[in-house]
Order: sequence, then structure tokens, then C-alpha cells
Amino acid sequence: MTERRPLILVVNDDGYEAKGLEAMVEIASSFGETFVVAPDRAQSGKAHAITMNEPLRLNHYKTVNGVQYWRTNGTPTDCVKLGQKVLLKNRHVDLVLSGINHGSNSSVSLIYSGTMAAAMEACFDNFTAVGLSLLDYSPDADFTAAVHYGKQIVGQVLEKGIPPFTCLNVNFPKASIEEIKGIKITRQTKGYWHEELEPCTDPYGGTYYWLAGYLVNTDEGEDNCEWALQHNYISVQPVHVDMTAYYAMNDIKYLENEFKR
Amino acid sequence: MTERRPLILVVNDDGYEAKGLEAMVEIASSFGETFVVAPDRAQSGKAHAITMNEPLRLNHYKTVNGVQYWRTNGTPTDCVKLGQKVLLKNRHVDLVLSGINHGSNSSVSLIYSGTMAAAMEACFDNFTAVGLSLLDYSPDADFTAAVHYGKQIVGQVLEKGIPPFTCLNVNFPKASIEEIKGIKITRQTKGYWHEELEPCTDPYGGTYYWLAGYLVNTDEGEDNCEWALQHNYISVQPVHVDMTAYYAMNDIKYLENEFKR
Repeated sequence: MTERRPLILVVNDDGYEAKGLEAMVEIASSFGETFVVAPDRAQSGKAHAITMNEPLRLNHYKTVNGVQYWRTNGTPTDCVKLGQKVLLKNRHVDLVLSGINHGSNSSVSLIYSGTMAAAMEACFDNFTAVGLSLLDYSPDADFTAAVHYGKQIVGQVLEKGIPPFTCLNVNFPKASIEEIKGIKITRQTKGYWHEELEPCTDPYGGTYYWLAGYLVNTDEGEDNCEWALQHNYISVQPVHVDMTAYYAMNDIKYLENEFKR
Repeated sequence: MTERRPLILVVNDDGYEAKGLEAMVEIASSFGETFVVAPDRAQSGKAHAITMNEPLRLNHYKTVNGVQYWRTNGTPTDCVKLGQKVLLKNRHVDLVLSGINHGSNSSVSLIYSGTMAAAMEACFDNFTAVGLSLLDYSPDADFTAAVHYGKQIVGQVLEKGIPPFTCLNVNFPKASIEEIKGIKITRQTKGYWHEELEPCTDPYGGTYYWLAGYLVNTDEGEDNCEWALQHNYISVQPVHVDMTAYYAMNDIKYLENEFKR
């Protein structure tokens, strides 16, 4: 009797040519039968966007060492839907891996992240899902340590599991295998993105703006993802998809009580 | 001494021509000084996407009854950033109103929703924010009851407030003022979107897919948003922006404990 190898779907948001995608395939293919569905262009900052107003394409572009690679004009979330429903014809997926992202998805970046949205999308179907990100935006980033420890994390997740309807947001510091001190289970760092949005002028006299900025960390704790990364720990954060602010339900009960027709 | 009127920023995801936007302006302008920043085309399903790879525009297109209307090529989240930082020059915004959306943002639709992402974006800056949605996708939907009860809800929120870093996801049933039974404070309904993704063929022989489906409600509770809407209650849901699955932190502690270099 042969044991079935896990079925693994790899997606990303940096697009099919990203170095981080190959790093993720290296992790995935060491554990199971791997299929890749990646966007045909960079889709950073696309969050949980889905493509409703234009048709979606899904095209095979290469097969390497038994791994099929497909690309789509869709978003990272579309990649999960197309991969599971069209390419894999609704087979049970044992693991969805998203990334490895060029750049961290710590603090509120998690909310803007296409990488993590894809992992969350897999949560809705209660697939096991892990997003991996490296604190290095460079297209030529060094994924050596991320692959090394990524294999450790993915292997343990496949063996021991994670709670249902929960995915993992894993962030690697920009550091070598030796420099990394360990893993910290973290909570989302409190903060926000600060943008200046300075006006620019185009050749025709029109005004435009570039959205760019930096994270303002307002969190003084040592149990959060930013702290872990700054101290050369790998941050592993459990993430859920229930946005209800349960703590606030009583505070707004007045709306229910004072309803008037 | 005259009291300063609240400063209100109105945004949406259905675009600057949507009927629901005018319904929201009717609510907003009854309470304060109102500015509108809306996308220049429909942006449904864009979730928390931001525009990083192309320049953003912000253009005034009309002023009616003292309300300035601006439109942008950006997403709903971009509307909040441009409105607060460029148009209002970082003035303190007393209230961000998003919608009124054509179509409900109940259950997991909340995660895909541009309307609610804009409200959540305002949360990061700790502005008071409310998203309003009507369970009617029609471009010509009747917003009479939504405006009637929307004024009640917004008025009470301005007076009594909501907890910090929390916004409200308000969903109106498709019903008249008389038919609506009351308000329920709800939690997010468990469920997922089911899509068939049937292949279609273009005139050139290529295959494409349309992403369309329906919500599968897997929640048997009576304290959730779907139950409220189905029973002609207005659903008011407190929403937060901390995605950490605190309940799962102990369950994945094994990753921290079994770290090996």
C-alpha cells in the first residue's frame, strides 16, 4: 500500500516570474504533488480583491520536475478559486501555500496583502493554508533561510495541523539561517500606514499622486510580529476570517434598544 | 459661540454615478459638512486593494447644496486616503460613511467588500466609520428605508460613539420602513461563496471563466447577519481590523517549541 502524497496548491501575489514563487515550489514539492497558479503580473496590495467584471483566463506555461505551472489574469484570491475549482476540479487540497512574498506582511500590511488574502480564501473552504513572506522587497532577495525554515514549519503543519478556519501568516526576517534565533507565535502589531501623497504634475499639467509610505508602529508590546522580526525571530501568526468585533457588541446595544419606526 | 458641524467624508465602491451614493449624501448632509470621494467606475469586490503601481487622480466634478463631489481612478480604500490626506489636508474627520452599497455585505461578503474595506481603512486612523449596504443589487434600488433608518443609526453613533478602532457594518433588508422590524446587533455569519466557474469559449477558441456564485450559509445561529436580514431586521455588526486568531495561539505553540536550526 502506498500512502497518497499531499496535494499542494501554490499561489502568490508577486506574479509568475517572482523568485519567491520558485522558493515556495522548492518547499512544496519536497512534501507533495504540487500545482502552481500565479498571477500574470504583480498583484501586491490587491488584498482580497476578486475579478467580477472581466473574464478570467487560466493558461499552462510550463511543467518542471512534475510541477505544473499555470498563470491567470486574476488576483491572488482568484488564483485559489481557479486552482481548486478549475485546475484541480474540486479535489480536496491538503495545503495551500501563498508566497513566498517579497516584503513582509506584518502589522496592518496583512490587511492589504494579496498573499495573505489567498491564504484566507483557502480558510473559507477549511483548507490548511500558510502564507510565507520575507522582510526583503528586492526582486533578487535571498530566500535561503526562508526555504530552510519554511520546510520545517510546513512539515510540522502537515503533521500536526492547525485549528479549523484558521491560516498562518509566517514572516521571515532578513537574516541568514544562523542569524535567525527561533520562532515566535505573535499577534498582529498595532499600527497604520503613513502616506504623504505629495502632488506631482504630468507633462500636460494634470496633477497626480503616488501612494507610498511607511508603517507607523504604535504597539509597545513584545508579543507582536514587528517585535519578532526586529529581533531576528520568525513570526508565525494565526489568522482568522471572522471580522466581528465581539468586544464591542454590548457597547453598541443602544442602537438595538433605541430603534424607532 | 457656534458649535462646529461634524466633518463627514462619504465614499463608496459602486462609483460616483451610483444611486446609493446620493442616498448616503442625503444622510451625511443632514448632520454635517460633507465631502464625497468616489471611484470613477464600479469597484465592487475590490476588498482592501490599494493602487501602488499607477498614479492616482483626484478631480472635482460637482458641488451640490454645499457638498463637494470628487472622483478618482483609485479603489474605495484609496478614496479614504485621498479624501482625508489630500482633499481635507489631514483635518480630523468626525465620520467616514461608506456606501450605501447596492447589495448586502453580510457573511463572508464582508471580506470581499470594497465598501467595508473603506470603513476599515478609516479604523486604522481611529476615525468613526460606518458602512451601509442594502440587500438589493439593482442600480435602481429603493433606498427610502435605508435613508430613514440610516439617519437614525448615524445620528446615534455621532452622539454616543463606538469603541475605538472599530467600525460598523450596517445591512438593510430589502423592505419598506413599515416592514422593517428593528435592529439586531449581529456577528458575521459563517459561510463561503460557491462558484461553478464553467468554461466559456471566446470567438478565437480561447477558454475563459466568469467568477459568479452564491453564498452558502453554514451558520445555524439566530444571532448573525444573514438571520437578521432574512427576518427583516437591520443588521448592525461591529467590525475590527485585528486578524489575529487569538484562540489558536496555544494550538500552534509546537512550532515555537520544536524550532531547530
